[in-house]
Formats: sequence, structure tokens, C-alpha cells
Amino acid sequence: MGRVTVRRRVVRWRGDGPGASRTERVDTLAAEEPLEVRHRADVLTVTMRTPGDDLDLVAGWLVAEGLVRTTGDLVSASFCPGLDAEGQQTYNVVEVVLAEGSDDTAARRRSDAVTTSACGVCGAASIDTVRVHSTHDVSADPVQVPVDVLLSLPARLRAAQKVFARTGGLHAAGLFTADGEPVCVREDVGRHNAVDKVVGWALREGRLPLRGHVLQVSGRASFELVQKAALAGLPVLSAVSAPSSLAVQVAEEVGLTLAGFVRPGGLNLYARPERVPAQPGR
Amino acid sequence: MGRVTVRRRVVRWRGDGPGASRTERVDTLAAEEPLEVRHRADVLTVTMRTPGDDLDLVAGWLVAEGLVRTTGDLVSASFCPGLDAEGQQTYNVVEVVLAEGSDDTAARRRSDAVTTSACGVCGAASIDTVRVHSTHDVSADPVQVPVDVLLSLPARLRAAQKVFARTGGLHAAGLFTADGEPVCVREDVGRHNAVDKVVGWALREGRLPLRGHVLQVSGRASFELVQKAALAGLPVLSAVSAPSSLAVQVAEEVGLTLAGFVRPGGLNLYARPERVPAQPGR
Repeated sequence: MGRVTVRRRVVRWRGDGPGASRTERVDTLAAEEPLEVRHRADVLTVTMRTPGDDLDLVAGWLVAEGLVRTTGDLVSASFCPGLDAEGQQTYNVVEVVLAEGSDDTAARRRSDAVTTSACGVCGAASIDTVRVHSTHDVSADPVQVPVDVLLSLPARLRAAQKVFARTGGLHAAGLFTADGEPVCVREDVGRHNAVDKVVGWALREGRLPLRGHVLQVSGRASFELVQKAALAGLPVLSAVSAPSSLAVQVAEEVGLTLAGFVRPGGLNLYARPERVPAQPGR
Repeated sequence: MGRVTVRRRVVRWRGDGPGASRTERVDTLAAEEPLEVRHRADVLTVTMRTPGDDLDLVAGWLVAEGLVRTTGDLVSASFCPGLDAEGQQTYNVVEVVLAEGSDDTAARRRSDAVTTSACGVCGAASIDTVRVHSTHDVSADPVQVPVDVLLSLPARLRAAQKVFARTGGLHAAGLFTADGEPVCVREDVGRHNAVDKVVGWALREGRLPLRGHVLQVSGRASFELVQKAALAGLPVLSAVSAPSSLAVQVAEEVGLTLAGFVRPGGLNLYARPERVPAQPGR
């Protein structure tokens, strides 16, 4: 589709004070466009994303919402054939068909969304609203990931990023084996979208749950990313930057190993550190 | 409320190979908790955020959704007095009361959300879904911001960040005058929340539209942030990292000056560069 990047004219200032220079040149930007997901007659969501791997993005989003758990739950996902006002196919609308059980859940969720929770249990209601419980027992995964492998993942992820090098503007998520071999790397303006694209790819390939694998992300680790990893059956999530408090809390609850500040020279382990042993012989 | 940061025990690995060391210590994390916004009997949204300045966050979110345009549109915003299952006030649910016109709009939006757009104009429908049009004419703002002021803003923003220094885990948004004087700085695990907190503060202070001001953000410039700035009447948005294609497109459409990669030694201007003149005398 050729819309992963867009070229625009920009004004560049370099230096400051009396020595500053102003030039014009063409620069490459990461594309961002809306993607609408439709189910029956409803709009399930509209998300801003970088075009590319859109059907994987939709599949992964459905997993993260708890609407799809196995490959068979997603009967089909396809671009809407309609045209925009200029007669162009925009590839910005995807229609999904779900298997019977998932179909009912999705339809029911639409009506649930309109009702409010009882005020007497304010906090619990809010947390419940955002929590999706995984059917995969991440806690029991016996995988071991040597610390040197974890330390190598950010560089391996960056090496596999095609668009970042041109734009400096994309997050990435990479699925790796416990030996550090890359399995699937995806990029997006949204960190959560990059993860959805990886998980959706795995769903469509019939690879869920992702036992024994590590997910490396380019930014911070939020609650949302920990939940997405757990729903995909991933036992280890590794982030280049800081985790949030709720990310750590949920990682502990589901038994997921959470690494943060993974950078040359060190890393921190916030939950289930026993999956990261010292090197052999120490 | 004391929940802006949370302390947790972490395992630290430093170094790699045979010289690596493993220690345990207590680390400070940025707090992340859900916030539910209620209007009449409906849940308008649930957002993950760092607690603090919550009523500003809600006010700014209402501006960004186009539900509130002036201070008078928001009659009140207050924490729900209910308790959670342990009998604690969680401060995670805010109830809003809107003035008559806004009230109707919010109620109508709930039912609109369930209907789908016609398939014949796929792309246009998706863009329309995400666009909120500002009542403020940002384009006509005559403000001039010297390049040296813009270059100084990231350091000024970082200097004002209280929580980042302890956690390394927060985004920030800062409102500055065209001379670079800080007016309001807010932090959050979500970049968009930090902006909502600034705009909501301005709404509640009766300062909208924010003519003649600059908004500096710590991360990238997405479509969403440009739209939030325009809805607050801000003529200049400056980001430390890259803008997306749609961020630039919308900035051009509304006449907002968009600066990106604002770092020591230089910056890029992606839209309306004429608001950033050379230094006097050159």
C-alpha cells in the first residue's frame, strides 16, 4: 500500500544563537491513519495506526479485548471493499466475522458498554472494567532466559526495524525465542499497536499461546502491554524503559516475568525474576 | 493521595558476561490506575492514568472530545463518594455535570457510538470519526516564538518534572509563554493525559483559548496531540521526538505551528514555520 512512510517538506534549524542556520529539505515521516474495525453493523473500535499488517493488528486487538482466544474464533478479517468520496479504496476499514461464542460476546459487549457500574464499589468497578482475564496459565511456563540474551534484545529489535531508521518515529515489538532468535517484529506509531500486530500474526499462524517466548518492546511497559502479553500466553515481557506500578502488579498476579530499563550494561526485573538465571557456570 | 509513585522491590542486573552482578533493592515506580468518567448514568470513558490533577484531566479530556468548549460548559467535576469493596475511597471515579448544550451532546454521543457509518465512504467515515473541529481559529494567531526559546523548552520541561527524576517513567506536557516562561507543567504515564491535564487546568482557570502560548511535550507528536492543542486554541506545539504524517497534515489544515525533534543543536518545523523567526538582527 506504500503508506508506511510519507515524505513532506520541512524547515530545519541547526545550531542556536548567531550561528544558527535555517534550511529546507524533504523529510520522511511515519504514516498515521485511522483504522475502523467493524463487526455486524457495529463499529467495534477506531484506532490510529501505521498502515501495514492491518489484519494482524485487528486479530491481535481482538485477542487483547478477550473477544478471540484461539485461531478458530476469528472466522475472517478483510478490508471493506467500499470506496471513499474520491473513489479510492482506503484500506482503513476492516470487517471481522467471529465464530459463534465470540460473536455473542462481541455483540453483548456493545450493550454492556452503555450501562454504568454500581457506585458502591467504585474502585473495583473501574479495575474490572479494564481487566481481561487470560485463559492461558502463564505462571506455569518453565522457560529460562539467560540475562545476556535479554540484554541483547533491544539491539536485535532495533536492527530488525525497517521504518524507524528512516523516520525515528516508530515503536516496535519483537517476538523472540528464549535463545534470542527473532520470530516476528512489527512497527507502529502506537506501542500497543505494534504488540497487537505481533500477537495477531501469531494467532493467524496458529501459534497461540506463545509459551517459551519473550516479547521485547521499544518503550515503557504499561498495564495494557502486560495484559496483552498474558492474553497471548507470553511468559516474559521486556521493555527498554520503565514499567508502571500497575504493570508490575498485574505481572505478579499472572506470573509473568517483567524486565525494564533493558539497556547496555544492565536491566531490572520487576516480577518473577527466577526465569532469568545467571550465566552457566556461575 | 500519595499515589503518584509506588515503591517496589526489584532485582537489578548490572554488567554482562562473567562480570555481571545481581542485587536486590527497592525502586520507585510511576503509579498507573484506571480513572472512570461518569455522566448521568453513563460511563463516558475509562482511562489509565497517573493519579493527581484528576479533575483537570477530566476537564481536558472533555475539551479534547469536543464536549466542553468554555469554562461554563463544565458545571462540576467531582470524585464519586462511593467506597470500594474494602471500604476505601479510591478516587478513581469522577462524575461530571455539564451545562445544557454540552449535556445533550454527551448523551447523544452515547447512542451515536452504536451506529455504523455507510460503507460507501469508508475512508471519509473513519477520518470523520476521529476528527473534532475546533471553535478557535488557531490559524490567525500572530504569535512569534524565537528559535532559541523553542530550543530551550525541553530542558525547561524536564527541570519542572517532579516525578520523572524518581521513576524515569513519565511523560510530560508544559504550557509556556512565547518568551519561554513556564505556566503549567503536568506529568502522566500517558502522553495524552499529560496534555489533557494542562488543557483542563487552563479550562478551569478560565484561560481558554490559549492564544500566544506554546505547548511542549516530552515524546512524539501524534494526530491526537495536534488535535488536542487546536481544541485548546494553542498556536504552537513542540515535541522532543518525531511527528506522524497525520499530525503534520492536521497542523497544516488548522494553521498550527508544529516543531519536532526539538533537541540541543536543532529542531525541525513541519507546519507554519513563519511563527519561528530568526534571532533579532539576523
